Amino acid sequence: MSRYWSDLVQRLMPYMPGEQPASAHPIKLNTNENPYPPSPLVLAAIARELGSAGETLRRYPDPLARRLRATVAAYHGLKPEQVFVGNGSDEVLAHTFASLLKHERPLRFPDITYSFYRSYARLYNVRYRAIPLAGDLSIRMDDYLGDVGSVLFANPNAPTGRALPLADIERIVAGNMSSVVAIDEAYVDFGAQSAVPLIDHYPNLVVVQTTSKARSLAGMRVGFAFGHVSLIEALNRVKDSFNSYPLDRLAQVAAQAAYADHHHYRMTCERVIASRERMKRALQSQGFDVVPSTANFLFVRHASHDAAMLVARLKDQSIFVRHFKQPRIDQHLRITIGTEEECDAVVAALRELLA
Amino acid sequence: MSRYWSDLVQRLMPYMPGEQPASAHPIKLNTNENPYPPSPLVLAAIARELGSAGETLRRYPDPLARRLRATVAAYHGLKPEQVFVGNGSDEVLAHTFASLLKHERPLRFPDITYSFYRSYARLYNVRYRAIPLAGDLSIRMDDYLGDVGSVLFANPNAPTGRALPLADIERIVAGNMSSVVAIDEAYVDFGAQSAVPLIDHYPNLVVVQTTSKARSLAGMRVGFAFGHVSLIEALNRVKDSFNSYPLDRLAQVAAQAAYADHHHYRMTCERVIASRERMKRALQSQGFDVVPSTANFLFVRHASHDAAMLVARLKDQSIFVRHFKQPRIDQHLRITIGTEEECDAVVAALRELLA
Repeated sequence: MSRYWSDLVQRLMPYMPGEQPASAHPIKLNTNENPYPPSPLVLAAIARELGSAGETLRRYPDPLARRLRATVAAYHGLKPEQVFVGNGSDEVLAHTFASLLKHERPLRFPDITYSFYRSYARLYNVRYRAIPLAGDLSIRMDDYLGDVGSVLFANPNAPTGRALPLADIERIVAGNMSSVVAIDEAYVDFGAQSAVPLIDHYPNLVVVQTTSKARSLAGMRVGFAFGHVSLIEALNRVKDSFNSYPLDRLAQVAAQAAYADHHHYRMTCERVIASRERMKRALQSQGFDVVPSTANFLFVRHASHDAAMLVARLKDQSIFVRHFKQPRIDQHLRITIGTEEECDAVVAALRELLA
Repeated sequence: MSRYWSDLVQRLMPYMPGEQPASAHPIKLNTNENPYPPSPLVLAAIARELGSAGETLRRYPDPLARRLRATVAAYHGLKPEQVFVGNGSDEVLAHTFASLLKHERPLRFPDITYSFYRSYARLYNVRYRAIPLAGDLSIRMDDYLGDVGSVLFANPNAPTGRALPLADIERIVAGNMSSVVAIDEAYVDFGAQSAVPLIDHYPNLVVVQTTSKARSLAGMRVGFAFGHVSLIEALNRVKDSFNSYPLDRLAQVAAQAAYADHHHYRMTCERVIASRERMKRALQSQGFDVVPSTANFLFVRHASHDAAMLVARLKDQSIFVRHFKQPRIDQHLRITIGTEEECDAVVAALRELLA
């Protein structure tokens, strides 16, 4: 603490990202990365942008990311003006808090969800109410009905992996027409239903997505918001008060190329889903309680083994999974779906630890 | 405007970046980009990071950019804990406003300076006083002495190109020990004196730099803040409440490689400086009044020709320079130093327009 700090700095509650292991060959199943590389088109697009001498790098990128937005808009059947891009969905969510979720009435989000939401709320001084999930860690739709003010939830939710069906999401959006409903779909590609098709019907809906999970581009930091033109305009006004050029040249062409290879995307998601179902059965057979997941991770607990102990013992073997020291979920592990070999390795390691 | 917008969105004053020309082969001297490509080491580093399949792109980047920070710290004779990195110096400046420049007493910055400062002030509701430059567009040091509160200025200033000598900067820093003095050194490499050597002596000094100008990486979006460990900690707390991973993998290795090639950097700066002095003499001989510049641009006016008209006529020939419709400087042009050929072309075009 320092007398030079603004009052804001004192009230912050910074987010803690998952550990970046220093060990040589970790089995890294703690930050929900994709186990498979991005489309080969991504590499080709980066090489094309670089040319022989990286000549274009001296030039600012397109501040509006027009080509990328056009590609992603076409992919989703939207207009480019309905698409906002940012430096990862974390930046997109931050701008969403500042521009669309900050109002007199408190924002509602689940008590167990992406912990960054609380950090944004502190950063922008957004009043919020953390609404308890049900006992089975599902979102209770009724808590979000009846014009309750702004709403934000992840679908599927993190770290639970549970998703709401589209009909329930539509009821929440339709039930709060005087406020913005924001849906964080970082993990939607692994089996949940996207709310993007609702966008043309609801002027209060914002859907946030990312290239970090299903499109294997966590290293390139590209996220999106989709919504009514006037909501996207609000995001752009904040962005242009913060950083005109949030996406570098290589990130723009990399993300664009990832959306051009639908086959690679589908194959990658299907492999992850198959591995998830396989690992789910294996863990259940070991006595783990597995929350139903449509994400690229499983959220599991064992009735007779302490989660923190299991995490520590796995780490001894260079296997990294995520543990949250938070009420209600401190006996859970969140295990990212890796390659089949990685999934087998964590299952085998747990089998030994439980023995 | 929309009922879904937060109050914040209404009060914003978004920054307008320089035009991105659509014409095929523009002479683009409007956004102060470097006319020469980045070091070949940059391309090699990107290729190394990509490998044969872009395998690393599926992984999050290092949220702390440790290697990049270590390299840049060593370059400047600082500790890594004295270095903050962001997604371009625009993001770094934004976080500086939120964390270090927002206090009860108004922030002071020059009335004629980087216009983004006003946008940040609106975004974070930072009170400010715009202090008039002297008649010759120089900063009057006395306006910033005597414990006046937080201070921010660009050195050299933009769009004037005028720099303060280091002794004057030190007087301003020493004269405001109870507040932060932030110096934006985006253009410092073209002949001005950096305040980085003062950092170990003043706990209230923050110096912001960028790879966009002297290091030819505008397209990669990497900026820095240097300062006392506790000031850098404040920036990190805001960053970790906004976006844990602001720099993608390729931006981190690109910037690191640019700092490893000091020879390329020196040669590039010297070429730009030589072209600037040559263009300065040419424009003076045409009757232009040229503000003394230690930046990679010239700020010029002609007694008998309207600036807006000159800009429009240059644009007809696909020559883009910057014009600010702002009191006191609306008769100036800001011309980026291009290649020798580009400088010759703009000089020749102006000669015809003035004839």
